[in-house]
Amino acid sequence: MNLFGSIEAGGTKFLCAVGNEKNQIITSEVIPTTTYEQTIKQVNHFFSVNKVSSIAIGSFGPIDNNKNSDKYGYILNTPKQGWSNVDLVFPIQKELDIPVFFTTDVNSSAYGEMHLNSCDNLIYYTIGTGIGGSVIQNGQFVGGVGHLEMGHQMVKKHPLDQDFNGVCPFHHDCLEGLASGPSIEARTGIKGENITSDSYVWDVQAFYIAQAIFNATLIIRPKMIILGGGVMYQDHMLGRVKAHFKLLMNNYITIENLDEYIKTPSIENNCSATIGNFLLAQKLLS
Amino acid sequence: MNLFGSIEAGGTKFLCAVGNEKNQIITSEVIPTTTYEQTIKQVNHFFSVNKVSSIAIGSFGPIDNNKNSDKYGYILNTPKQGWSNVDLVFPIQKELDIPVFFTTDVNSSAYGEMHLNSCDNLIYYTIGTGIGGSVIQNGQFVGGVGHLEMGHQMVKKHPLDQDFNGVCPFHHDCLEGLASGPSIEARTGIKGENITSDSYVWDVQAFYIAQAIFNATLIIRPKMIILGGGVMYQDHMLGRVKAHFKLLMNNYITIENLDEYIKTPSIENNCSATIGNFLLAQKLLS
Repeated sequence: MNLFGSIEAGGTKFLCAVGNEKNQIITSEVIPTTTYEQTIKQVNHFFSVNKVSSIAIGSFGPIDNNKNSDKYGYILNTPKQGWSNVDLVFPIQKELDIPVFFTTDVNSSAYGEMHLNSCDNLIYYTIGTGIGGSVIQNGQFVGGVGHLEMGHQMVKKHPLDQDFNGVCPFHHDCLEGLASGPSIEARTGIKGENITSDSYVWDVQAFYIAQAIFNATLIIRPKMIILGGGVMYQDHMLGRVKAHFKLLMNNYITIENLDEYIKTPSIENNCSATIGNFLLAQKLLS
Repeated sequence: MNLFGSIEAGGTKFLCAVGNEKNQIITSEVIPTTTYEQTIKQVNHFFSVNKVSSIAIGSFGPIDNNKNSDKYGYILNTPKQGWSNVDLVFPIQKELDIPVFFTTDVNSSAYGEMHLNSCDNLIYYTIGTGIGGSVIQNGQFVGGVGHLEMGHQMVKKHPLDQDFNGVCPFHHDCLEGLASGPSIEARTGIKGENITSDSYVWDVQAFYIAQAIFNATLIIRPKMIILGGGVMYQDHMLGRVKAHFKLLMNNYITIENLDEYIKTPSIENNCSATIGNFLLAQKLLS
């Protein structure tokens, strides 16, 4: 029986896991993200002990996942110290001598959710420290010349938010600048977890997230949109986002069942990425 | 040698054409859009005289192009009197007894431009009386559950345009509400063709169109974006749009050659739709 590897490469930890053909986790290990060299060494050690037939990596970004590029397999310019312009794929592929699939963390999550929801046309957004997104059309990732950067789209300002400049260093008040976790503290001076659920801030956040879903609905026409990430852990957020989405759409496109259309991830703690990676690793061998 | 049919179904005219395997137009006829029954009768008469092996229709919308739908082949709710909820495909397919491909007018144009630019990852926008768009990824139209409605995405307001409400009956100040042809006259009281090229209005329009390209760049990552439609016929517009796009992007994603990335259509008078239809009709037989 073949076993498959998953690496969720994040800025604070690398989650390595081994799964079987039923996507069950056989074993896993959390490796802290330290220096590039040491982290890769520990990842390779884990998979030299726990042998697998192929691996998929879902990485923090930006990354180069264009197979025709000189820098294929690299993490590109990242604020994470010591991790800009490093080759993530080659040192693992060379050491373990197995096929490695390389994509973004959100693509891995989207692929897992595609499987868990039996839905091959969907969009996955993560709304946390940053905002990222993935689009799957007929089981394929959308992205002509590179991975998507849906978090930085332009949005219309909320009337109560006109004076807030946004926190994106590139675009100030793009979606990420206005609706990511850090924007909450920047706007109010209070950490998100200390803001009561009746604060106007949540409604402002929901308005921006609803615009992202609205735009994605018109530009992609998916069957389903999944909203993950820390900001969506607030119980009241999903309902607020749906309410704003309905107002924005104004019946222009009919969504039969909004509760089936806008959802949070099927499994908690981002495990959809692990399952997505197992499936992407399996696909390398087919 | 097979011949192929193209029908560009518009609100004022139906352009019927016959092409050969080299996409050369053999003959064509402009049929005014009168009543539904009379227009279909004239279309069928044209193709009964000028025989073809298959036909592609690129239609004004909204349409139902979901093959699993009861209303597949229909024009849906349109402001065009007498044309709401009419079946465009069946009466043609039945009378001529040949395969018929049914899509949006912008999809036909995008497909023609894909061929003319040898580029299978592109976006086509038409900016005229309305705003529509098409996305092609690896030679396939993007659109999970129906055709795209990219014209209605939300955009950030231009500082000089804060008091303008927009002309979209559904969303007021969405992209179409702020940047379509009719928005120009609604904003100024003057028809677009009578506004000098140094008016601030063009810069406002370009700002919105640039946002549409910016969002599409982040959400799709295409190789190329083609801008068609009446508003883009103004010679100075393309340059303005590129300038705003550069400002918005702020080097977040590097576009190697902006002049190759943002372009107007390869051939004039919307002939890319005819070529797109010939190719889509050919594909039905392959």
